[in-house]
Amino acid sequence: MRYELYYWSGIQGRGEYVRLALEDAGVDYVDVARERGDNAIMPFLRGRQEGALPFAPPFLKAGRLVIAQTVTILAYLGPHLGLVPGGQSAEIYAQQLQMTISDFIVEIHDTHHPIAASQYYEEQRTAARKRSQVFREERLPKFLAYFEQVIERGNGRQALSRHSYVDLSLFQLISGLDYAFPNAMRRMQKRIPRLRALAERVAERPNIAAYLASPRRIPFNEEGIFRHYAELDPTR
Amino acid sequence: MRYELYYWSGIQGRGEYVRLALEDAGVDYVDVARERGDNAIMPFLRGRQEGALPFAPPFLKAGRLVIAQTVTILAYLGPHLGLVPGGQSAEIYAQQLQMTISDFIVEIHDTHHPIAASQYYEEQRTAARKRSQVFREERLPKFLAYFEQVIERGNGRQALSRHSYVDLSLFQLISGLDYAFPNAMRRMQKRIPRLRALAERVAERPNIAAYLASPRRIPFNEEGIFRHYAELDPTR
Repeated sequence: MRYELYYWSGIQGRGEYVRLALEDAGVDYVDVARERGDNAIMPFLRGRQEGALPFAPPFLKAGRLVIAQTVTILAYLGPHLGLVPGGQSAEIYAQQLQMTISDFIVEIHDTHHPIAASQYYEEQRTAARKRSQVFREERLPKFLAYFEQVIERGNGRQALSRHSYVDLSLFQLISGLDYAFPNAMRRMQKRIPRLRALAERVAERPNIAAYLASPRRIPFNEEGIFRHYAELDPTR
Repeated sequence: MRYELYYWSGIQGRGEYVRLALEDAGVDYVDVARERGDNAIMPFLRGRQEGALPFAPPFLKAGRLVIAQTVTILAYLGPHLGLVPGGQSAEIYAQQLQMTISDFIVEIHDTHHPIAASQYYEEQRTAARKRSQVFREERLPKFLAYFEQVIERGNGRQALSRHSYVDLSLFQLISGLDYAFPNAMRRMQKRIPRLRALAERVAERPNIAAYLASPRRIPFNEEGIFRHYAELDPTR
């Protein structure tokens, strides 16, 4: 089966977590909006297609199934792509971790858009500075310490005992945070050795290395979730 | 099996979506922190227990399984409690809808806490007023119109063709929004007839009606997700 991924063509965004899974598994897929333009997304959002109604991209077409929401797409793809350890308990844990990654992504996005996604960054800079400070001092350490602890506990057990889509998403998180908050991430460096090792391991996987070096990997930019604004990431 | 729900004892919060499912199904469960105090939650968060590590409550103990994240808990409970239509396609759609409800809940919470969950409302009132205006004018209509359309399409098809945990969560959303934003919800009234009918139907289900009238239902208050601050919900 040829999977069809629908996501905005100009950013990594939430679509990237799905792209990484499809690329890592080496399966046949088409990144629809990058081939045919973002307009290809609209009929689904307007309810002109059969099946599930997505609230927003990304969504995946797998045969007749339309699946929206990154966590749900990955929970579906995991067993099909061999990207989750076998057994109900591991599948549930992987999904729970992906949900927490999803919560973290919202908080990362809201550092630069704390008031309205529909308004420019420049219109909400004062609030963005405040929210980013709380993010750097409280939320970033809390989330990263949590995932570090999960890896520490997971060795040889349940989730993360084998390569999974959660690993791919954690790689994406670390990459994006290094881009958006290089100073804050430098200060976290010694506290996340297992996350660093995981991210390096993922980057060296042949299919992922090939993908990252290809034009299919959209560079980080200031339209996506991970944005670098120097004033939101001071050196101290 | 006796389910154990772990959630803060003083608020409805995210735990309420799980409580409604357990109550509607009429199964045996214990609301642990309400019986033994919030301290009963801590060993799990500190990693002193076997199994999955929760990032935050709510989490559910089902035999030896520890399941965190509301969406994941409901995806697990749905088939066990008869609270999702049969078949993979319906289960996926229900989970996708619950994910979107989850996204909506974050936005509802952030109307009163746009800067930091760890700070008082009074410390972020200026940003809260701005974010709430965008919420009332853009986000609230967009999410409610989406769910209204889902119900319209769903009749006789896939998800929402039968009673499910998604119905219970939509009931909770409508109830909470009526509490927090009565004026904004009055202005939405004519545009959500199907959501209104669904919420009334859920409230009349015998187990739900009994639950709502019982002391187990914690009243809405200004510690939870749905808070009523008059300045965030002007009459016009």
